[in-house]
Amino acid sequence: MQQLLHTPDGVRDYYGEEYARKLMLCDKIRETFRLYGYQDIMTPVFEYFDIFNAERGTIPSRHMYKLFDRDGETLVLRPDFTPAIARCASKYFADTALPIRLSYLGNTYVNTLGYRGQLKETTQAGAELVGEASVEGNAEVLAMIIDLFRAVGLTEFQIEVGDVRYFKGLLKEAGISDDVRAQLRTCIENKNHFGLEEILEENHIEGQLARVLTRLPHLFGSPEEILEEAEKLTSNTVALRATQRLKRLCACLKEYGVSKYITLDLGMLGLHEYYTGIIFKGYTYGTGDHIVTGGRYDHLLEQFGREAPSIGFGINVDILQQALTSQHIPMQGRRPAVLIMFDSSRFAEAAVKARELRSQKIPVHMLRMKGMDAAGIQNYIHENHVVCTLEYAGGRTDIVQKGEVPVCDI
Amino acid sequence: MQQLLHTPDGVRDYYGEEYARKLMLCDKIRETFRLYGYQDIMTPVFEYFDIFNAERGTIPSRHMYKLFDRDGETLVLRPDFTPAIARCASKYFADTALPIRLSYLGNTYVNTLGYRGQLKETTQAGAELVGEASVEGNAEVLAMIIDLFRAVGLTEFQIEVGDVRYFKGLLKEAGISDDVRAQLRTCIENKNHFGLEEILEENHIEGQLARVLTRLPHLFGSPEEILEEAEKLTSNTVALRATQRLKRLCACLKEYGVSKYITLDLGMLGLHEYYTGIIFKGYTYGTGDHIVTGGRYDHLLEQFGREAPSIGFGINVDILQQALTSQHIPMQGRRPAVLIMFDSSRFAEAAVKARELRSQKIPVHMLRMKGMDAAGIQNYIHENHVVCTLEYAGGRTDIVQKGEVPVCDI
Repeated sequence: MQQLLHTPDGVRDYYGEEYARKLMLCDKIRETFRLYGYQDIMTPVFEYFDIFNAERGTIPSRHMYKLFDRDGETLVLRPDFTPAIARCASKYFADTALPIRLSYLGNTYVNTLGYRGQLKETTQAGAELVGEASVEGNAEVLAMIIDLFRAVGLTEFQIEVGDVRYFKGLLKEAGISDDVRAQLRTCIENKNHFGLEEILEENHIEGQLARVLTRLPHLFGSPEEILEEAEKLTSNTVALRATQRLKRLCACLKEYGVSKYITLDLGMLGLHEYYTGIIFKGYTYGTGDHIVTGGRYDHLLEQFGREAPSIGFGINVDILQQALTSQHIPMQGRRPAVLIMFDSSRFAEAAVKARELRSQKIPVHMLRMKGMDAAGIQNYIHENHVVCTLEYAGGRTDIVQKGEVPVCDI
Repeated sequence: MQQLLHTPDGVRDYYGEEYARKLMLCDKIRETFRLYGYQDIMTPVFEYFDIFNAERGTIPSRHMYKLFDRDGETLVLRPDFTPAIARCASKYFADTALPIRLSYLGNTYVNTLGYRGQLKETTQAGAELVGEASVEGNAEVLAMIIDLFRAVGLTEFQIEVGDVRYFKGLLKEAGISDDVRAQLRTCIENKNHFGLEEILEENHIEGQLARVLTRLPHLFGSPEEILEEAEKLTSNTVALRATQRLKRLCACLKEYGVSKYITLDLGMLGLHEYYTGIIFKGYTYGTGDHIVTGGRYDHLLEQFGREAPSIGFGINVDILQQALTSQHIPMQGRRPAVLIMFDSSRFAEAAVKARELRSQKIPVHMLRMKGMDAAGIQNYIHENHVVCTLEYAGGRTDIVQKGEVPVCDI
């Protein structure tokens, strides 16, 4: 029997106030996407393995849940939305005028060997702006993310923004090999200064390039603080174009009124090779994980047959909810309800009252009094967010009311 | 490349107006559940096979999608919600006062060999009223289903209600074997009169029992039409208790103001052995499938360790949407939007306007004019439900407006 009550490792049930709040959070996320003109899109929970392979996906094959269809083809539970959305953008919007604005909200599945308590089924929300290469497009996506966080009640959070072209430009000009580049990337991302100096020495990287690479982990802060230094440090055209675009991005974000949530970080280089422009990560208190990650990847769609520069991001809704909870930010869950208690002889009156209240959008619970004791009723009231009870007892003709009927505000 | 754009057989993508309407439909379904005091609950997409085995589930094992966890345990994508919700009711609400009201909305997965076009991933909504055995409980569930259909815009639909105890009572008293009972059930469900007569003859079933079984397929219609005949046909105590309860159920449904959607059918016997009381199915135009099925199963929860009489139902949301579409019932999809076109030189003004409109809950699309031709803009307007355009063109100082800014009604 005990075994029968268990869910598999890494997945869980949602119910009660927690799930009510999660659904409310999802509603607010969707509403923000819609206000920015994004259309909801949903892909199947499983797809051919090829969609999520190493060229396109971010999850190693061994961490995917695999199953087989009747023809023996390998299917996987989607570990990630981006490749599936890119597929849709190529398939359904081939003749549609660009840009295309797509947003999604659904579950993803990663079969990690991770530590206890790490969830394997998580809810992801995100959006993709397809076919818009401009700085204004980048600004729109960042402004939307910030509006989204504010809409769910977050007040203290930061989005760190970098641009992979600064680093890529520097290294390409100097003809640094891919191998050394990967080593440098790791040291800079981890702000490992000793390791970085060792690599520079071993590979005889000197002069201007060595100076700028050594400074990269420090190029972190407000736009005013770091862009000037970043430009003084190099004469590389690609790198300077990146700082120029970041400057314009910050100007656009000012017009959106969201500057105070933005920090620049030129030492952020992105885990995934597919990023081609700005990249970003969002942080808040109450969780060790990012609440958002994303960036520009201008060549992803080509793999599905349509060339279009794109920028997108993903939000882990479970982690966001965790952060809101630890920050004690009020979240609306279940609405206050009315409990109508009745004896069968007075069901007619009770039903009419229930219809009236429900037509006013007030949740109503009906409870037959027969067989209920006072403790049971109190327990029911407590468990179900009941703020008002109406009692239609047999043998009487009046209605006993306790508490006030709530006013619906939706 | 072509292969890369495909989804596996039986699953599909959702987007555009169709998906926007589906999400709106889901919102209305959830709202109805909440107005009746039901709390949202969600179980994992995969669970141990045992939860859905033949004793509890409605789907044969060979039609389930199976996968394996790291320990080699067999997991299945949930083919059905009811057993999973029953598991939760026993696990989380063991000490909670009854009744418990639970509702769900999510996808289920059935790997049928079915005909082309039959979906293997479908959206199901449903509810379970746990620990309430009364006629009033039955009435609540039926009234909620009818309110739900009306809330989504359906006007012409019928719920057929039967009670398996009428048939079960008759056969038990006569000591008919399980084998013969199964044959009778099939003939009566399919209204196969010749087959029925043959079985009666072969098994020497005669007299009152033969008469009532022969009439069963005809005991279909309004309560007034059939309950009287059903009672005259038998003196079996269990069968008569069933008709008495149906009579009281119909009286309760009258108080809820939903009688006109109800038809009785004592020849409906239910596919699943687990039903123990009333069973029902809903029909409308524009789809060959039921839009709802459900009933009372008082012993399901026992299998998970908690005894509690329960009644529940499931609605196939995709079929419901299909019916609404074929009946040309208006469904709200994407809200009308404003398109703000701008040259980069006037981005500041455009961004301020976008913020203002979004704060009024009006969806705003931003479009940089550079590189767009008139046809592309028209296409964008057409694809994105744009009813008003505002143009901030460089070299001018005014704003060119076409159409009226929509008024938000949410």
